[in-house]
Amino acid sequence: MKSKNINISKWAKKSLPEEVNIDGIISRLKKQNIETPSWGYADSGTRFNVFEQSQSAKTTFQKISDAAQVHKYTGIASKVALHIPWDNTDDWQSLLDYADEKGIQLGAVNPNLFQDNDYKLGSLTNPNFRIREKAINHILECIDIMRKINSECLSIWLADGTNYPGQDDFIFRKRRLEEALSEIYNELDEEMIMLIEYKFFEPAFYHTDIADWGMATHYAKLLGEKAKTLVDLGHHPQGTNIEHIVAFLIDEDKLGGFHFNNKKYADDDLTSGSINPYELFLIYVELVKGYKLKKITPAYMIDQSHNIKPKIEAMIQSVIRLQELFAKALIVNYESLEQAQENGNIIKAEEILQDAYNTDVKPLLEKVRQEMGCPLDPLDAYTKSDYCIEIKNRSK
Amino acid sequence: MKSKNINISKWAKKSLPEEVNIDGIISRLKKQNIETPSWGYADSGTRFNVFEQSQSAKTTFQKISDAAQVHKYTGIASKVALHIPWDNTDDWQSLLDYADEKGIQLGAVNPNLFQDNDYKLGSLTNPNFRIREKAINHILECIDIMRKINSECLSIWLADGTNYPGQDDFIFRKRRLEEALSEIYNELDEEMIMLIEYKFFEPAFYHTDIADWGMATHYAKLLGEKAKTLVDLGHHPQGTNIEHIVAFLIDEDKLGGFHFNNKKYADDDLTSGSINPYELFLIYVELVKGYKLKKITPAYMIDQSHNIKPKIEAMIQSVIRLQELFAKALIVNYESLEQAQENGNIIKAEEILQDAYNTDVKPLLEKVRQEMGCPLDPLDAYTKSDYCIEIKNRSK
Amino acid sequence: MKSKNINISKWAKKSLPEEVNIDGIISRLKKQNIETPSWGYADSGTRFNVFEQSQSAKTTFQKISDAAQVHKYTGIASKVALHIPWDNTDDWQSLLDYADEKGIQLGAVNPNLFQDNDYKLGSLTNPNFRIREKAINHILECIDIMRKINSECLSIWLADGTNYPGQDDFIFRKRRLEEALSEIYNELDEEMIMLIEYKFFEPAFYHTDIADWGMATHYAKLLGEKAKTLVDLGHHPQGTNIEHIVAFLIDEDKLGGFHFNNKKYADDDLTSGSINPYELFLIYVELVKGYKLKKITPAYMIDQSHNIKPKIEAMIQSVIRLQELFAKALIVNYESLEQAQENGNIIKAEEILQDAYNTDVKPLLEKVRQEMGCPLDPLDAYTKSDYCIEIKNRSK
Amino acid sequence: MKSKNINISKWAKKSLPEEVNIDGIISRLKKQNIETPSWGYADSGTRFNVFEQSQSAKTTFQKISDAAQVHKYTGIASKVALHIPWDNTDDWQSLLDYADEKGIQLGAVNPNLFQDNDYKLGSLTNPNFRIREKAINHILECIDIMRKINSECLSIWLADGTNYPGQDDFIFRKRRLEEALSEIYNELDEEMIMLIEYKFFEPAFYHTDIADWGMATHYAKLLGEKAKTLVDLGHHPQGTNIEHIVAFLIDEDKLGGFHFNNKKYADDDLTSGSINPYELFLIYVELVKGYKLKKITPAYMIDQSHNIKPKIEAMIQSVIRLQELFAKALIVNYESLEQAQENGNIIKAEEILQDAYNTDVKPLLEKVRQEMGCPLDPLDAYTKSDYCIEIKNRSK
Repeated sequence: MKSKNINISKWAKKSLPEEVNIDGIISRLKKQNIETPSWGYADSGTRFNVFEQSQSAKTTFQKISDAAQVHKYTGIASKVALHIPWDNTDDWQSLLDYADEKGIQLGAVNPNLFQDNDYKLGSLTNPNFRIREKAINHILECIDIMRKINSECLSIWLADGTNYPGQDDFIFRKRRLEEALSEIYNELDEEMIMLIEYKFFEPAFYHTDIADWGMATHYAKLLGEKAKTLVDLGHHPQGTNIEHIVAFLIDEDKLGGFHFNNKKYADDDLTSGSINPYELFLIYVELVKGYKLKKITPAYMIDQSHNIKPKIEAMIQSVIRLQELFAKALIVNYESLEQAQENGNIIKAEEILQDAYNTDVKPLLEKVRQEMGCPLDPLDAYTKSDYCIEIKNRSK
Repeated sequence: MKSKNINISKWAKKSLPEEVNIDGIISRLKKQNIETPSWGYADSGTRFNVFEQSQSAKTTFQKISDAAQVHKYTGIASKVALHIPWDNTDDWQSLLDYADEKGIQLGAVNPNLFQDNDYKLGSLTNPNFRIREKAINHILECIDIMRKINSECLSIWLADGTNYPGQDDFIFRKRRLEEALSEIYNELDEEMIMLIEYKFFEPAFYHTDIADWGMATHYAKLLGEKAKTLVDLGHHPQGTNIEHIVAFLIDEDKLGGFHFNNKKYADDDLTSGSINPYELFLIYVELVKGYKLKKITPAYMIDQSHNIKPKIEAMIQSVIRLQELFAKALIVNYESLEQAQENGNIIKAEEILQDAYNTDVKPLLEKVRQEMGCPLDPLDAYTKSDYCIEIKNRSK
Repeated sequence: MKSKNINISKWAKKSLPEEVNIDGIISRLKKQNIETPSWGYADSGTRFNVFEQSQSAKTTFQKISDAAQVHKYTGIASKVALHIPWDNTDDWQSLLDYADEKGIQLGAVNPNLFQDNDYKLGSLTNPNFRIREKAINHILECIDIMRKINSECLSIWLADGTNYPGQDDFIFRKRRLEEALSEIYNELDEEMIMLIEYKFFEPAFYHTDIADWGMATHYAKLLGEKAKTLVDLGHHPQGTNIEHIVAFLIDEDKLGGFHFNNKKYADDDLTSGSINPYELFLIYVELVKGYKLKKITPAYMIDQSHNIKPKIEAMIQSVIRLQELFAKALIVNYESLEQAQENGNIIKAEEILQDAYNTDVKPLLEKVRQEMGCPLDPLDAYTKSDYCIEIKNRSK
Repeated sequence: MKSKNINISKWAKKSLPEEVNIDGIISRLKKQNIETPSWGYADSGTRFNVFEQSQSAKTTFQKISDAAQVHKYTGIASKVALHIPWDNTDDWQSLLDYADEKGIQLGAVNPNLFQDNDYKLGSLTNPNFRIREKAINHILECIDIMRKINSECLSIWLADGTNYPGQDDFIFRKRRLEEALSEIYNELDEEMIMLIEYKFFEPAFYHTDIADWGMATHYAKLLGEKAKTLVDLGHHPQGTNIEHIVAFLIDEDKLGGFHFNNKKYADDDLTSGSINPYELFLIYVELVKGYKLKKITPAYMIDQSHNIKPKIEAMIQSVIRLQELFAKALIVNYESLEQAQENGNIIKAEEILQDAYNTDVKPLLEKVRQEMGCPLDPLDAYTKSDYCIEIKNRSK
């Protein structure tokens, strides 16, 4: 790692509002930990095709090894979310040891309730009692796994919904879901939290049982303090003001965490910040304000499908883009912003945000990386690494 | 009114499932009362133009007179919603007497919080305390008017929102709104209800303070039993499954009522059932099921902008379309539907709905109209009436 | 098949405008031929899962056998579209013989340019010359197959597009596509036509090379008379007025055909008429008017993914729904409609359409089916058939 | 204007790829001329309200005076588009003299075909021949005005469309429009161009006669070389890839110009770059590439409704945001981009764009402004100017 003299106070003086505390910002940037998903290192695709890449991870061990690379080069991605049964194993201790050796912690556990023929008409909402029970049991198994790997976060996404009018009764399904979630919630240990994800549509095409933040939060409130809402950036109708929802959830103490990604059309699962980086910046602005107001600590997780990108590079790219936009949100002059808002000075308020957004935060991020012992340009460094070459011809 | 022999039991035998109780259906159809909006009889338009029609109502008295025509020809539209200050008067007794004489009751009262320069940055959410107070006072005045006219329904739609990122703070606005609504709620009389409407966007173009059913219901739950959610069919993002939201609200005892209309793009305020009548049918299906389950009695109100249609004809057209689709929802074989749902017979369940939807309910509606002393073809009868001709050249 | 006396002239007298020629309508309904897709008889799914059904077709022979059932029960689905390589064979004669025996003709040939790793960055638009050549050669092979099976219709859907800004150059891709399509077009035989399909998004999530009807028609015009545009009902942005596009293409002599289906959100590939049957009716209205004006003969094809429905039943359901809505479009009083349009009588014009749409056309369809020797209720008849039971446990 | 030493070559060395020619970029930035609309200096609003601002322009002279301020502070907005009849006058010479004195040229002429009761059912597409004629004559008058003020650009936006199914016949309207536009086109002088704008919806809510770029371009191609397509950034369905359309039109020699603005939902007419600045950057990338390829010179026009912003400030903000994003597009390393595209290096290609986008171009813009004699911070300078204060209490 080359040593470069980064004069951050000179940069700060030139680029930042006086009020901004550069050391506090650097500290915040070091502490943000972005969890990457195990499945993001494997091949993914659309209903039309999965383009296979020889270097993609084929086993859970490989996924953890790849995640460790992302953490090595960015310094802020030490946790990996698991998906059960994809990452299931008879020998959790070996996996834990391997992760530990690689400097990785195992994070959120994600049950799978969409790949079994039994779930054709729903999992926790299925008209058939025995299938609901099967689904509940699968989640209870996941809670058990959480105990084994010291995970505190159960992340529930349901594919449940219907494809045609009349297919099932909305209210009956709602009640089945309330009952099933209660049963699961009661099994959570003290320190565990349950994140409830919502999604507008797909794979169900007529209705989704947890269709929006309002429904997810309904269940989270019904269950209690350990249940919170998970915001996946791609799971909203076109035009939705996501930062508004984020703020609303913060004020209701129900913001559980994020699945970061970006979309242009539907749940496209593109790289974070690749289509509308300003929107991501505005979401981070709410998080920075929410932290000041309530010391919130939502889970930051990536959930993307890099169908045609090499996976590790795509993940590094995502992490640094998130970091970049977080940095821009941190340097906003919030005092002036609040004043402009009080005065009804719309253009001034807007320009305060645009100013921060247009600031080149590269020096700041380089400083953070230098202090954390990471390469100044993580993407470039990784692509030149031996690891990147070694995995070109991977097999199971 | 010509006398025609409508053999409804023969029709029922041929057209309906055996289980269906034809008398019960006729009774339900007679009892549905659809409130029409006073402003729907006046000229309306877009930001580009208001196309003036000489026969449109120019005064509140004319609006009530026109509404009485709609009721005369349909039999199920005896109530008129008012908008303050548009319909405000110093002499409510004269208006009440006039309405009474015309066979009309005054219905929901709608405050106006969007046409005063003070509300540029919001009404109940405005950063300025004095403007919030002004807005609250306007609503308290409306409650006073409700007392004078025996209205039980306060219908609140806020145009509040922002046009640009940074313009105001989401959480501060949320808290101001909670406070203002509480103050208003406390002034409601025992038998009054407050309907809270939500809207995705317009006139605010960056965020709307009550953006969706989830936010509206948040406020309704916070306030108490007298507060409920109002569903305007045009206030959702594209693709939203409205019937699902309706069912959800029914189960939460928070469905307060409807603003009926139809849209193709945004809040187009087109005639009910003019773009997707099947969707309206599916909403009525939820209402029929909801009534069975919980004896719900939401307020049925029309809120449309017939920019280029003659107003009375458009309103009659709307009322009979709503009646038609309600009739189709009433003849669904719900027993078979539930059975098909339990058996996972998707196609059968769907066809049960399509069968009812495709049934020609004209004989049924004619029977209802005959029993109520209305013309069998209300639209045709009205267009041939003297009233229709007399108002051609109206002045204030 | 039970013999039932259907008094169609009595029904016509009661239900139809005088001007309508019932015999002409029956003749039109008999002649409409809806091509079903071979792939619609096999299992399909989303990127999350394919729910396997034991009775789904596993081979091309089974697909043709299933299609023959749809034709047997509906009388208007004698053609099957093929997909290459899914339906490819070394022995086309056997397939032709089998189809012939089953009363089925082989229809449109659909090349596959999306399931080969080489097409990761595009097929006909790929930056790499050799991959473009490979894609062209595949289509030329398809043209060869067309000759073998006497198909006249080459149906091209490209999955080509990009997922990220910067991934490739729009203009270079456009020019590559123009070149490739020209090369292919020149190989078409005299009586062949080439249908060019467009799609808003998916599987590409940043841009689609043929994104809308305007681009598809650009290529079709560039190539010549044998190239036309294919309208898939699910391939438009939300809100798009598809019937307007259909009319526009008719007037430009570029309407090549349809892929029928329905959507609520994106390219959901749901059963035709299951979400908004009125929209489908309005499209048929344009087709009826277009036929009067220009004797158009577009290809009517179904392209749906019945992920959770049994395939044959779903296809029968689709065909009869299309027939039903075609029937409703045929009985519109076009003379009165045109008059109302000339007079600017918006409500009258609209009600003329709604009247036809609300007419119960079951007697008309039963008459058609009776004359064609089909069961009056095709769906019911099929589900009670031996075939339906026999295929329950199918293997390859 | 304070003199500041801007060491642009030092900045360039640090911030730009080597290949980039800084002088060429500065020259390009000086030459971009963004036309502002006269109506953008007056009050505007939604169908719900127009919030009146005392300082907004009340007369065409005031509009030109305001536009001159925008040009004074930005240096690149010397032209003003007119709207007839809003800006009509008996004495064009006085207006020309006034504009000349203020350093302003009169630009595109925009006919108004939406504010006359006669146009309720359309203007150029109206079923009534006499109304079509009236609309044509209005445009011919506009061409006459163009001659008087030396404008070369006729900018046509039609509000034509229908609100309800059946209201009118799509094909008849298309043919009327083709005829009318031909008649108008034939009256254009040699050096004049006609820009044809499209719009997805509003004020028509069922169909728009020129609904998308494909229809606009159809008419432009039919007419000839002097007719081109106008892209308004707010006139597309959600999700539309506008930069793709821009590239397509460039290659077809049909890109006539822009109406710049931004949207979150529908045709929100918000400040350019206020919702998704990256999208605007990507559009400029196509323009920079298009210029290299074909020396295109489209018209750059702003069309926004600053309902709640002070108008002059909003316009300065818009112009500098457009300039900023153009600057970022100019410093893209196109050579490397093309190489990455050829190599299928998606992440590299994307990062080349993101790198340019994330570059702080303030020094570059300050250099440009200094060389043009403009204040380095135009918005700040204007708000501190006497003019800004003097117009606070304007009357007609």
